[in-house]
Amino acid sequence: MELIYVLDILGTFAFAISGALVAADKKFDLFGVVIIAFVTAVGGGMLRDIMIDAHPINWIGDLNYLYTILIAVVLTFLFKSKILPLSKTMFLFDTIGLGVFTLLGLQKGLSYNLHPIVALIMGMISAVFGGVLRDVLTNKVPLIFEKEVYASACLAGGISYLILKYFNIPENIIFIVSACVIVIIRVVAVKYHLQLPKIKDDVFGKPE
Amino acid sequence: MELIYVLDILGTFAFAISGALVAADKKFDLFGVVIIAFVTAVGGGMLRDIMIDAHPINWIGDLNYLYTILIAVVLTFLFKSKILPLSKTMFLFDTIGLGVFTLLGLQKGLSYNLHPIVALIMGMISAVFGGVLRDVLTNKVPLIFEKEVYASACLAGGISYLILKYFNIPENIIFIVSACVIVIIRVVAVKYHLQLPKIKDDVFGKPE
Amino acid sequence: MELIYVLDILGTFAFAISGALVAADKKFDLFGVVIIAFVTAVGGGMLRDIMIDAHPINWIGDLNYLYTILIAVVLTFLFKSKILPLSKTMFLFDTIGLGVFTLLGLQKGLSYNLHPIVALIMGMISAVFGGVLRDVLTNKVPLIFEKEVYASACLAGGISYLILKYFNIPENIIFIVSACVIVIIRVVAVKYHLQLPKIKDDVFGKPE
Repeated sequence: MELIYVLDILGTFAFAISGALVAADKKFDLFGVVIIAFVTAVGGGMLRDIMIDAHPINWIGDLNYLYTILIAVVLTFLFKSKILPLSKTMFLFDTIGLGVFTLLGLQKGLSYNLHPIVALIMGMISAVFGGVLRDVLTNKVPLIFEKEVYASACLAGGISYLILKYFNIPENIIFIVSACVIVIIRVVAVKYHLQLPKIKDDVFGKPE
Repeated sequence: MELIYVLDILGTFAFAISGALVAADKKFDLFGVVIIAFVTAVGGGMLRDIMIDAHPINWIGDLNYLYTILIAVVLTFLFKSKILPLSKTMFLFDTIGLGVFTLLGLQKGLSYNLHPIVALIMGMISAVFGGVLRDVLTNKVPLIFEKEVYASACLAGGISYLILKYFNIPENIIFIVSACVIVIIRVVAVKYHLQLPKIKDDVFGKPE
Repeated sequence: MELIYVLDILGTFAFAISGALVAADKKFDLFGVVIIAFVTAVGGGMLRDIMIDAHPINWIGDLNYLYTILIAVVLTFLFKSKILPLSKTMFLFDTIGLGVFTLLGLQKGLSYNLHPIVALIMGMISAVFGGVLRDVLTNKVPLIFEKEVYASACLAGGISYLILKYFNIPENIIFIVSACVIVIIRVVAVKYHLQLPKIKDDVFGKPE
């Protein structure tokens, strides 16, 4: 589906920018910025492909990902101070990337005959692991573990995909509906500062 | 062998709890806790399988690992304040996991016709790498590099396995004896605070 | 080519020593030192082989790498205080390793029919990723992202290799010339403190 490919590239672009900005903040040199942008954009899909033995892995099989990342880094390099004011646009692209990456990963998992639960995990890994690698390589505790409902949005969208698929609804509709589930949950969560519960006080124990 | 499978699941359970407790301490949200528990429990075996090209990799090939990890997280979530007093039990499970993971990894390596030294390394990676990943993802220096004789216990158990196998002793006996070697070394080491030497002062140099 | 194999082993040795020294500085125990030396020396080639599905991966297919690493660790352990004064020799070996690893990785990529750009990236990953893993495992921001022109030297050498190959110049000559490019760039860069630009102030924006 052409539209999904365009969204995939747009998501790659947004993820690469997000990586490049983090690396630039850390005062990495140009090469470091390229690496972090690269890892953020394709790291999740790469881990998925290595786990399920899908070769050639994502960025090796389609050079457009590499070109997209390089363009993202060049733009970050040239226009850094102008990208930040665009952060709403970037947030939108990033959220689109989240949705598309999750569903493409899930589809790929299913096409490799994985159990739906495993395919769902593959979708989530595709979407969130690039950001985890970005944070590990910049020596930070991965953001996703602390404050984002990021992963829950992917999970909800993936489950919605699997349920709709079970009822034999056409693939395109499933994809779009589930992507919207992811986008909406994330947008609402960010807007209203929703968070997942933490294991501070356990249910039957006393507050610490 | 049924018993070994049960011990494998018990070890997975203990490793998942250990991951979940570390993640809870870091105030990760529920999703972060699941990821860290997952990585701690299956990360070592996953790396082994990817290195030796054994597909489907551990947790993809047998969903019971996933279910075990989820149960461990739920129990941690509900009973966190009661798990800590159980730490002797957890230490026992964890040590059993260490032994079983080492020997299963070693066996798998041999079954893939790897050189015994490489198979031995695969056993050790299976046992310790989950903990290394847990520490990297929670932004700590991996514990194992600093204070545990953890790895030495695995090494000794693995070597014992290879030696006994050389003498054609039945597989079950080898497995149990070698697992006991690992468990005993670890328990004794923890009890008497034994440590491996460090490269502070070299043998022929002066103290710094 | 025999000479290249010798240089490859020499590079492995130098990378292992560099890892062992970092681990010793962090006061890791013997096991931790072995792991870090191992990861530094073979981590880049291992990631390359996993990405391109080349099995058996580097250190599994040739035990000489393991033996070289163990010798390097033993020597570090015995002579730590004497290795530091040798740092010019170590710098030379390390730089040779950089050149050889880059070009061997690039050659391997081409032999797997990868696009030249992807093969070039494989060469760079082979050369630099061991150091990145070393830094991640010792909980530091990878050195390469901040101050080294390390990666640029690999890139230049790799491009030189691809250009010379395009003109059908004999393989041995290409290899030696391109390795010299890498060695010279790195030596000159270290001597004159050259650095890549950073994204502090962007080209069209104001200084922050």
